[in-house]
Amino acid sequence: MNRQELVNLIKEKQSYLCVGLDTDIQKIPKHLLSHADPVFAFNKAIIDATKDLCVSYKINTAFYESMGIRGWESLQRTVEYIPSGIFTIADAKRGDIGNTSTQYAKTFFETYKFDAVTVAPYMGRDSVEPFLQFSEKWAIVLGLTSNEGSQDFQLQPVGDGFLFEKVLKTCMEWGTPDNMMFVVGATQSSSQLGYIRKLAPDNFFLVPGVGAQGGSLEEISLQAMNKDCGLLVNASRAIIYAGNGEDFADDARKVARQYQLEMASYLNKMVAAA
Amino acid sequence: MNRQELVNLIKEKQSYLCVGLDTDIQKIPKHLLSHADPVFAFNKAIIDATKDLCVSYKINTAFYESMGIRGWESLQRTVEYIPSGIFTIADAKRGDIGNTSTQYAKTFFETYKFDAVTVAPYMGRDSVEPFLQFSEKWAIVLGLTSNEGSQDFQLQPVGDGFLFEKVLKTCMEWGTPDNMMFVVGATQSSSQLGYIRKLAPDNFFLVPGVGAQGGSLEEISLQAMNKDCGLLVNASRAIIYAGNGEDFADDARKVARQYQLEMASYLNKMVAAA
Repeated sequence: MNRQELVNLIKEKQSYLCVGLDTDIQKIPKHLLSHADPVFAFNKAIIDATKDLCVSYKINTAFYESMGIRGWESLQRTVEYIPSGIFTIADAKRGDIGNTSTQYAKTFFETYKFDAVTVAPYMGRDSVEPFLQFSEKWAIVLGLTSNEGSQDFQLQPVGDGFLFEKVLKTCMEWGTPDNMMFVVGATQSSSQLGYIRKLAPDNFFLVPGVGAQGGSLEEISLQAMNKDCGLLVNASRAIIYAGNGEDFADDARKVARQYQLEMASYLNKMVAAA
Repeated sequence: MNRQELVNLIKEKQSYLCVGLDTDIQKIPKHLLSHADPVFAFNKAIIDATKDLCVSYKINTAFYESMGIRGWESLQRTVEYIPSGIFTIADAKRGDIGNTSTQYAKTFFETYKFDAVTVAPYMGRDSVEPFLQFSEKWAIVLGLTSNEGSQDFQLQPVGDGFLFEKVLKTCMEWGTPDNMMFVVGATQSSSQLGYIRKLAPDNFFLVPGVGAQGGSLEEISLQAMNKDCGLLVNASRAIIYAGNGEDFADDARKVARQYQLEMASYLNKMVAAA
């Protein structure tokens, strides 16, 4: 999916919600365990219940990998089930020397046909560039993440800024707003969020940390929205584990609907302000 | 495998060679393509030909992931085929927020039963610590890597050193020489290698970059060996693609044998110097 298609999708659906399918077989409703593929059965119900409210699904590969080969089967069924026209993200945080990153890019863009994959930048240019060589595909590079550990290295001073700023500025020399996004955690302070938007005015941000991790949808929206919206805000546990009974998908829909309505209000403010 | 067992293994085999199974189906001898699982057939022959000469095998997961589910089947067959008593490394470069890193640790330590996994440190403490919670298992954290991109961030000044030094020093507060190693590229200068050994005197280093990437086995051995050896030197392409005919495994063995003999001489120098 290209940038304009994503921007149009957000306008049409009045949503920039990304639903995170961090599906843990230990946490799904017990009645699903009799299915041949309980994880897929769960994801299918969540997708059916939320596909009109979100513009993206993000699959956290770790939860699938940990189940071995049947986990990858669940992942493949899930990504194939997501309706075309919805932006798909492999949250895999890959990154290695050039010939190996090329293999990872092929994995997620060709073998599983995702639109985007999250990329860890520590190994530098040749670890990131292979993900930028695919038409209408995206590298979503870790910038400033939502977890406490973001302080350990990302917020270390480098030159006249922090390491994450160096990462953003350097990566913007390699990619464009048409093939590169950044991960920016919703748990960061509002001044930090506004500052990051100034650093990267045109790139989309994938924003985790809303919901279970405590980040504020209002803060991230007011501080970091740009004229094209420029945000994909992810909620995982807050939506997919909203309920635990037979009607878990209805509960997930209710929470997704709340997010979507709140997002519509911020999109309207943006239009009014323009 | 614990540290003492690894040290004993190195002494017994007079080797600190790690053979990297970066097996690319495009590069293996054509006569293997008629096998049901050509990648495993190749790996099996390489393992049979080198298992007495090396102390470790490193599986680069990207090459398996890119083939989808049958790639994971090849990976699983390969790790199960490696004789017990040889140190197994999943070169997967994972790292994410805590609950996700826990899933990755389970993937490689429990589902596939590797001894060690490579870990990307950018996300900080809660992304690394889950890999340290498993008895006799190892996190091998990226320190200073062998690729050109290591200059982009790892060699940026942070405080009174470089970023990679900050990473090493900080990670050494989280792990011990019994559960944490570092990736240190053989392509770095000899002064850099010696300096890194001073920073982390007791940790094992996993050293890629010898062979196809141009690093020197002599340099790394003279500069970075410690009293327990403290090195696992990896060669991938230089060994596994040494030949391309029916006798490719014999060619691989010859190159592995050269490395092992050279390593034995450095180990003897170390004993003589002690």
